Amino acid sequence: MRYVPVDEAVNFSLSNFKLSVETEKLELEQLLKRIPAKEIRSPVRVPPTNRSAVDGFALCSDSVTSASSNNPIPLVLREDKPGKISCGEAVPISTGDPLPDGADAVVMLEDAEKEGNRVLIMKSVAKFDNVSRAGEDFEQGDIVLSRGTLIRPWHVASLSALGLEEVDVFRKLKVGIIATGSEVSEPGGEGFVFDSTSKLIAGYLAEQGYMDVKRYGIVEDDEEVIASVIEKAWEKEDIIITTGGTGPGSRDLCVKALQRVGGKILIRGIAMRPGRPTSVGELKSKPVFLLSGYPVAAFVGVRFLVLPFIEEKLGIIDQRLRFIFAKLTSRVFGEVGVESFIRVKLSPCGNELCADPIMLRGSGILSSLLNAGGFLRIPRNAEGYEAGEIVRIELV
Amino acid sequence: MRYVPVDEAVNFSLSNFKLSVETEKLELEQLLKRIPAKEIRSPVRVPPTNRSAVDGFALCSDSVTSASSNNPIPLVLREDKPGKISCGEAVPISTGDPLPDGADAVVMLEDAEKEGNRVLIMKSVAKFDNVSRAGEDFEQGDIVLSRGTLIRPWHVASLSALGLEEVDVFRKLKVGIIATGSEVSEPGGEGFVFDSTSKLIAGYLAEQGYMDVKRYGIVEDDEEVIASVIEKAWEKEDIIITTGGTGPGSRDLCVKALQRVGGKILIRGIAMRPGRPTSVGELKSKPVFLLSGYPVAAFVGVRFLVLPFIEEKLGIIDQRLRFIFAKLTSRVFGEVGVESFIRVKLSPCGNELCADPIMLRGSGILSSLLNAGGFLRIPRNAEGYEAGEIVRIELV
Repeated sequence: MRYVPVDEAVNFSLSNFKLSVETEKLELEQLLKRIPAKEIRSPVRVPPTNRSAVDGFALCSDSVTSASSNNPIPLVLREDKPGKISCGEAVPISTGDPLPDGADAVVMLEDAEKEGNRVLIMKSVAKFDNVSRAGEDFEQGDIVLSRGTLIRPWHVASLSALGLEEVDVFRKLKVGIIATGSEVSEPGGEGFVFDSTSKLIAGYLAEQGYMDVKRYGIVEDDEEVIASVIEKAWEKEDIIITTGGTGPGSRDLCVKALQRVGGKILIRGIAMRPGRPTSVGELKSKPVFLLSGYPVAAFVGVRFLVLPFIEEKLGIIDQRLRFIFAKLTSRVFGEVGVESFIRVKLSPCGNELCADPIMLRGSGILSSLLNAGGFLRIPRNAEGYEAGEIVRIELV
Repeated sequence: MRYVPVDEAVNFSLSNFKLSVETEKLELEQLLKRIPAKEIRSPVRVPPTNRSAVDGFALCSDSVTSASSNNPIPLVLREDKPGKISCGEAVPISTGDPLPDGADAVVMLEDAEKEGNRVLIMKSVAKFDNVSRAGEDFEQGDIVLSRGTLIRPWHVASLSALGLEEVDVFRKLKVGIIATGSEVSEPGGEGFVFDSTSKLIAGYLAEQGYMDVKRYGIVEDDEEVIASVIEKAWEKEDIIITTGGTGPGSRDLCVKALQRVGGKILIRGIAMRPGRPTSVGELKSKPVFLLSGYPVAAFVGVRFLVLPFIEEKLGIIDQRLRFIFAKLTSRVFGEVGVESFIRVKLSPCGNELCADPIMLRGSGILSSLLNAGGFLRIPRNAEGYEAGEIVRIELV
């Protein structure tokens, strides 16, 4: 049996599946963590004109070049706030107000003193001092949001500043998770094991913000029952994930259940540890990811197979750091034929980050994720990394 | 006028204010990004007993020490699945099933072959091979969630695995944001400037997940009107934030409005740039943070004053990286008397991250945040940092 390398499995999924996600229009308040379906460019200049950046007096900078507290320069105070001034005049101006014609700078309130119908300027200013220049924030046509950008607060604020009130985004991607295993039950239930895997991966996908994740409960080890839940999920979801039932043993029923309803297994086993039984299937052109029932193995499957597939497919641009570099605190070993995903704990050590491998093989050791800030990938057939080496860590 | 250093302002706020946040019980599905109000320890061992980690045959490891494909060792097959076996016997076992007494290891299905009432073992196993040992994931009494931990998917999964169905968390912290400025309006409105600041900080606080953030609209520059909105917000909110109206100019009304309703200004001006007019006030023992109306300055106020106050006050433990180290790509200068917050763009360069300073002074340049992955803090009165230096970057 050939185990398919992880990146090959991602690329295969990308070229094999379409995700047809419609768009919807959303208002600014609903945009956080959603994905714009097309590029948005600035329809206007911001600021539209030169504006005062402070409260003070607009004037022409040439008229106060020698001004200082020892040499205050008197200007004619135009309390009538005319649209145009000449040099030698000053106009009271508030933050955000457009500069009158003829003015090219603003002196701050505390650097001036009113005296009857004059104002004494006690500080020189250069051209455009204390002025927000037209277009300095956005020029007309600037790209504000690229298609696929995961929307953060500054994007919403920028759209608002530009006067845009709604945006076309992809509707939420629908992901259905089917947990299997007669030994598994919800907490408080009858099983030997209380479910953790399906909540772990459902929560992780939900955290991304642009997916509607639905759990289809925990299904007993019965090919027919699993098959009927897969069919039900197919009706509603864009992507189906099963957990459990992928190994070669007597209970390995997700594969058979998928085939029973007319689905196909396209990849059977991926060269990764944990998660080697991970498989990729298809049901009437929708992707079905068959993950391990073990929490850590299923998590690796979601983080390094399912999520990269989704992100690449939707063209997602995520500004958050997804990986960092860190100094490895102890030696780790690679394995023949499989890519290893080593949980690491991250912490600052001096002027850098250290990555401390959590040396547990068990793909069922859920508690090992509690401290794991990221994963170190060791390529197939590589010897590993030495203590002290700088390695790339994929953040969770 | 003395500007208070940023860290001093945070510490002052911490010692001056109480946040009394009640707790509520939530089910597992609602826990993501919430904050447990007390430590949670494991009530049980997980697994409760030694269990098989694979599908195969439970046996005693001593009986198969010389087994190999060339030297298959026959064991008596106990299809009746007894609770106890002796060495020389093997019991079919499925993933997750408890090991029968007398068995101390499991041989995988593919390393054995059934033959009538015997099973041929073709691979030796060591004690506990393919066994999940009792308590290997959680021992009774292990800390699963410390008080204050920002709940991530693996916490939810762990609680579920332990059979816990609900948890006491802090109810969401209520934060009210009052934007001021007659020149500002909602997008599409009449103002010179469309609001960005209040959406920026509201979105950033909302992203944290454990706050209910309410915007009280944009209030005109009228002391009385601002005062009445402050009073209204005081009724409902734990924390009040105002934006705009903090400088020394004619429109600087938030300070006066707060005093008008019986509030006090405790800190007037913070030694930070951008954001020097940032102030801290109190209204009937609730904190009021008076931030700049400029988006970048207000953001720095939220990220480095308001959020640290909230996080410290609730004792929040956030596993996500909040800062990293990066190589500075160009020289930056400090300033006399103020701590500088320099926006930087982060990108990988070789085997490290590089931080590229975004060299804009304007505290109103919202677009500068679109590429800023973090901030570099330059201490007061420091000269700055050289190109090539490794610096600490606070992530946004």
